Formats: sequence, structure tokens, C-alpha cells
Amino acid sequence: MKSLSAQRAESSDEQQPPVRAEWLTTLLSTASVLLLLIAIADPARAAVRGSGDLALVIERATGSVQIVETTGNTMLARVEGLGDLSHASAVYSRDQRYAFVFGRDGGLSKVDMLEGTLAARVVQSGNSIGGAISQDGRLVAVSNYEPGGVKVFKADDLSLVADIPAEQANGQRSKVIGLVDAPGRRFVFSLWDAGEIWMADFSAGDQPTLQKFKDIGRNPYDALISPDGRYYIAGLFGEDGLALLDLWHPEKGVRRILPDYGKGEAKLPVYKMPHLEGWAVAGDRAFVPAVGRHEVLVIDMNSWQEVGRVAVHGQPVFVMGRPDGRQIWVNFAVPDNDTIQVIDAETLALVETLKPGKGVLHMEFEPRGEEVWVSVRDADRLQVYDTATFAVRAELPANKPSGIFMSARAARIGL
Amino acid sequence: MKSLSAQRAESSDEQQPPVRAEWLTTLLSTASVLLLLIAIADPARAAVRGSGDLALVIERATGSVQIVETTGNTMLARVEGLGDLSHASAVYSRDQRYAFVFGRDGGLSKVDMLEGTLAARVVQSGNSIGGAISQDGRLVAVSNYEPGGVKVFKADDLSLVADIPAEQANGQRSKVIGLVDAPGRRFVFSLWDAGEIWMADFSAGDQPTLQKFKDIGRNPYDALISPDGRYYIAGLFGEDGLALLDLWHPEKGVRRILPDYGKGEAKLPVYKMPHLEGWAVAGDRAFVPAVGRHEVLVIDMNSWQEVGRVAVHGQPVFVMGRPDGRQIWVNFAVPDNDTIQVIDAETLALVETLKPGKGVLHMEFEPRGEEVWVSVRDADRLQVYDTATFAVRAELPANKPSGIFMSARAARIGL
Repeated sequence: MKSLSAQRAESSDEQQPPVRAEWLTTLLSTASVLLLLIAIADPARAAVRGSGDLALVIERATGSVQIVETTGNTMLARVEGLGDLSHASAVYSRDQRYAFVFGRDGGLSKVDMLEGTLAARVVQSGNSIGGAISQDGRLVAVSNYEPGGVKVFKADDLSLVADIPAEQANGQRSKVIGLVDAPGRRFVFSLWDAGEIWMADFSAGDQPTLQKFKDIGRNPYDALISPDGRYYIAGLFGEDGLALLDLWHPEKGVRRILPDYGKGEAKLPVYKMPHLEGWAVAGDRAFVPAVGRHEVLVIDMNSWQEVGRVAVHGQPVFVMGRPDGRQIWVNFAVPDNDTIQVIDAETLALVETLKPGKGVLHMEFEPRGEEVWVSVRDADRLQVYDTATFAVRAELPANKPSGIFMSARAARIGL
Repeated sequence: MKSLSAQRAESSDEQQPPVRAEWLTTLLSTASVLLLLIAIADPARAAVRGSGDLALVIERATGSVQIVETTGNTMLARVEGLGDLSHASAVYSRDQRYAFVFGRDGGLSKVDMLEGTLAARVVQSGNSIGGAISQDGRLVAVSNYEPGGVKVFKADDLSLVADIPAEQANGQRSKVIGLVDAPGRRFVFSLWDAGEIWMADFSAGDQPTLQKFKDIGRNPYDALISPDGRYYIAGLFGEDGLALLDLWHPEKGVRRILPDYGKGEAKLPVYKMPHLEGWAVAGDRAFVPAVGRHEVLVIDMNSWQEVGRVAVHGQPVFVMGRPDGRQIWVNFAVPDNDTIQVIDAETLALVETLKPGKGVLHMEFEPRGEEVWVSVRDADRLQVYDTATFAVRAELPANKPSGIFMSARAARIGL
């Protein structure tokens, strides 16, 4: 093909109209190529791909998140500018395109998982601690420490829909923790200072009906909802036992279960209160991290009685069930946070002890359980294990990784 | 802004270079717009969108499928040329981009859910009846009637990986039914003619290890796997009861449960054998369609004993649990296939009777259960119900719709 300058030279002594025609043709061709290149390279036109195998990894030290995919186990993008991501968590839009990331600094960030961009961000309080997305995907709720309460936003544009100040009897606002979604466009959460559980029902529209359960116990510090969305259970920092609310029967009120739960904290220093959202359910048994003890408790979910204990390597932090319920994976508080142990859910035997490295902060199973992703903070690394053979399938660099959130959470109640 | 003709007129008596410049500018602008329009409209560049809220609807009479989305409840595309889709079903790639559709004519079609195209298609047997995708998403298996057996393909390109002829003792091939995936890259299926259950283990590579369970009962006609992938249960056409295999303990072999299941078929003509994949699990109870009776059976999954019966409007076909386990939805065989009934899973009371229209063939819940999609074949219509209020949220035209398969199945064991 001729170059543009050669064409110009050849045509320079011809009459005007052909010159113009060649100029036009050449320039239009060049423009076409440029426009096509722009269209292909345009970061606003990401490659078409499914979103079922995506995950978001919190990089707490740098205020960034990594977007990874779990089919080839590779990194796709890094998104920056999310603020203070210590203790950050994320939920997904129902189409899985967007992740909503809850930062410690009150920031609520909407990450476009397919474009690898920050689609929207609001700083909605001074200090927050997690959130949830409504069953229909239209509302995102954030639980706040400062000022205490819950704020609810449109998932679309993060515009404020409802503000629920968590006022106590004394007029002061309470810190709010353990916020989860429940079927019926409801959110349930606990008031640390007030010792209450509140249920906000948005089924009639964007202004909620509030139902308050008082005197549920001192200082609820975290909570979970069972995978079917029926049981809301709050851990109590200020006393022993757990507070249980049956959402099928809120009229029955909150009752105390496992009255000894938390006892024995004094025997060993508690390095970290365990995460209750880490409860693993296998069949009708739940596996629960003991507080301050080197034990995982086994609970019968019909009677809510303890039916067994498993001695483990350290103080458990997350106790996670493989999706088929056959294995329970456990990580630990300092000084044992370099270790993961695997319990057989049927025999309660320890079947594996892994040493991924210092600072194992989180584990997340791929949706059907064939692999598990592990954050190893101090090694700046993600490790992917085969859950059948315990072989390392992949290692990926990451900046001080903590929470890992797979897009399959979009289809799950309470996640 | 000036029009193109006005610009020409104004510049007609000026010297050449400015004229050429205006021409060029104008033409380039026009070209830009055209190219952008082409880029936007290019069917090979589908819009970037998440895949978490997609569903595929079988249109059996026309050999086509509809791709719909469940956030706005709209149709996105129709894909044609899938052959005989009577009794067709589908599974999803782990990234949810592709659906694998199993047609009755032995056709295995790979549908691109985002592009709305047929990505690949092979006719792999003369007559087939469903399939499954391996836990890691790499293998797609199809169960065949003619010739009997299972063929296993790479999900990537539908190239053949393994052929498992289901040979009986007499050297004849058996029809294969009830094919499901199980954790550990396994497929489990039943042999109609031979009365056997086979397990094909692909964990060591693409050539399976086969384990065969013989004398499991006469003519297994359908099967299911529990949501955790542990229990494989086959219905028996040739005798009463069900055959249960505990995949955590294959060494214990197959045992018979519910010995009276199927008895009473003679009391009423059986219009359609119920679908076993329709078993609904809520807590530790399973809800099971009775055979030939206007009843839904309630089974305790710990003891495998029948613990209750619910009288319903007709002979149940699908018995489906809302994802939170609170409601059980039931459709019926002719002549009652215009009706759906809803059972409260806790009280066993009938809470609703709906009349969507003649030919209610299938129901599929949105992943978190807020809505359910219903195929009404004879009305050529899909209906979307709010599961809390039972209001109709949307109606969409469809050509003789039957099965509805949501992309969230990608993340589930046994679906």
C-alpha cells in the first residue's frame, strides 16, 4: 500500500478535483482506522464477558480493590480511591455488574466489575461498619458508628432514600452493627449501645416500617443470618450467650441461646472477637468459633444446643463451610494467623493443616466449592487451593489483601 | 449550526484550500458519526452487562430459546435453530456467559447469553434426555437414550472427551436418565433398562473412573441430587420406593427409602410421572410429588421417613421451594395444568391457588426468591409473580414456553 506522503507527491501536479478525492479517501480511511482503534481500545467499552466467576479483593493498605476471575485465576483490574478499607466488606447488584464496597471511613463505593472503574462514591458518615443490599437489589443499606444509625441508598445512583437514626432511650445515637438483608425487602441490624435488634421493612415502599426488639443483651458486636434468611443471631460482647430472632415469627421476640457462649473468655486473652458471619452451616449443624478458646463449637440448629467441640490450632476467627457442607475451614487470630485448619464436617476430625503464611485474614470458596481463595496479608499474596487435594492452584500478588467477595453472593440471601 | 449546503454556498467563491478544509471537516464529522453508529449497533459487540440476572426460556415448538433478564423483566434476544426442544433443559458455564441446552434430538447447543447467538452446536446422539456440567465447568455431559450411554464434551468447543456406553450384562446399551453433577468432578446417572446407578469420576483427568451400583430397582425414570450434592435419589417406574445413594459413603451402596412411594398409582391414572428434580428442600424436610395422587409428601431428610402429606388440586409435576424455604410451589399434570398452588412450608397450609392459564409447564424462582417465573404454554406467555403478594409483576410473550433456567444455576451444585 502507498503511504500518505507518496500519494500526496504523486498527485501534486494533477488537477484539483482528483486531488481532493484522493485526499478525502485517504483521510477518511485513516479516520476509520483511528475510530476503530478508539472503539476497540476504549476503556468505556470493556470486553463482553460473563460476571459469574468474578471476585473483588480488598487491598486495605492502599484503599484499592482488585477484580479477579476464578476460572483462570487471574487478576483483571485494580480500582483505586476507595478510602479507608480496614474492615471493609462488599455486596453485589443482582446482575453482578456492580459491587458496593463499605469502607471504615463512611465511604460507600460502587465499583463497576466489568469496566474496572469506580462508578460512584459517597461518604455517607464518619465511621461505618458494613452493609447489605435488599432482596430486590434496589436498596443498599449501611450501618454506621458515627453518627450511629442506618442510611439507605438507591443502588442506581447512591442517592439517599431513608435515614434511620438509631436513637436510644437517652436520646443518644447507638452504634449499629450486624446489618443484614432478609427476605421481604427487609434489613435487620443490632444496636451496640442500646442492646436492641431492629427490623426495617421496606416492602411497602422506600419509607420503612420499624420493629424494635429491646433488652436483647448487652453490646451486640456482630450478627449473622442463616442461609435461608430465617434466623438472625447476634453475638453479645457484654454477656454470655447469643440473641436469636426467628424472622418467621418476630411476634415471639428474641430469645437467648447457647447460654455459655463466650464464657471462658477470661481463660485466654481474646485476641479478636470471631466473625459471626463466618458461621458454617452443614446439614442441620452449625459450626461456630468459640470466643477466646482454641475450639470450634458444633450446634444443632433444631434444638440450638451445643452437640460437640473440635479442638483447633488457635482462636478461630472465620469458620467457613465448603459449599457442599463436607469440610469446615478455619483461620485464627494472632499469634496463629499463619495457619488454616480443615475439619471433616461428618467425623469432626481435623483432616488438614495448611500454612499459607502470616496474616491469613479471609477465605472465600468458589461457588461450587472446588477451590478456595485465601488472603495472606503479610505476604502480599492471594493463594488459591484445590479443596479436594489441598494443592496450591495459583498465587497472585495483592497489596495487603483482606476480604474476598465472589460475585455469586449476588444470588444469596444475607450476603 | 450551519447546514452542509449553507457552508458549501458560502465558501463556493473562496480560494481552494479553505473549501477543501470545510469539506474534509464536514465529511470526517459525518464519517465519525457513521462509524460510531456502526460501533454502537454492531451485533458482534453486545452491550456490556452483568450476567447474574439472565434466564433462558425454552420455546419448544419453534426450536428456539428466549434470553430474558429478571431485573426489569424484559426479553433481550431470541436464538433459533436449536432443533427439537421437547423436554429440553439447560446448564450454565461457571462465568454464566454460556448456556448448554440439551435437546431431545441429541442436539447439544451452546448459547451465548450476552451476544444472543448460537456459539456452537453438535448433534451427539439420536435421542437424549438432559445433561450436566462438571463442578469445575470444564466438562459437559449428556445422557442418551439412543444409543444409550453418556457422552462428555469440553465446554470450550464441544469436542468429545469421553464416551461411556451404558452396556448391560446382555451386551445391549441401556437408556440413561437422571444425570447430575456432583462435587469432585463427578457425574452420577441411572440406567433405565439395566436398573443401575453409575458414578463417573473425572477428578484424575478426562478419562473417568467408573463405579457401578447394580440391582438398585427396576426402571429408574428420573433422579435428583440434594442441594449440597450428597444424596442421589432415583425414582423407580417398575416398582415402589426410591433408590438412595449417599455420595459421602458410596461404599455403603444403594438403599431403598420410602418403600410405599409410587403405590397407589393404580388408584388414579398417572398422567405424567412427576419430575424428581423438582424436589423442594426446606430445612431438613423435603417436599415430594406423590405419583398418581393429588398429594405432596413431606419427608424428613434425617430419617428418610414420610412425616406428612398435603392434599393438593391435582397430580403434582414440579414441587419447588422458594429459595428461603418458606413456600412450596406446585404445578400439576393434565387436566389440572392451569393451576399453581402454594404451600406454607411450616404449617403445611395451602396459602394460595393461582390460575395462570392452560399448560403451566415450569416455574423458576429468581435467585433470592422475590419473584417467580411461570411458563404458560397454551397462552404463549411467561408470567412473573411477586412471591410475597402473588401479584402479577410482568407478562411476556413467548412461543409455547416450557423450561425456564436462570443463570444463578451456574453457582449451584447439581443444577
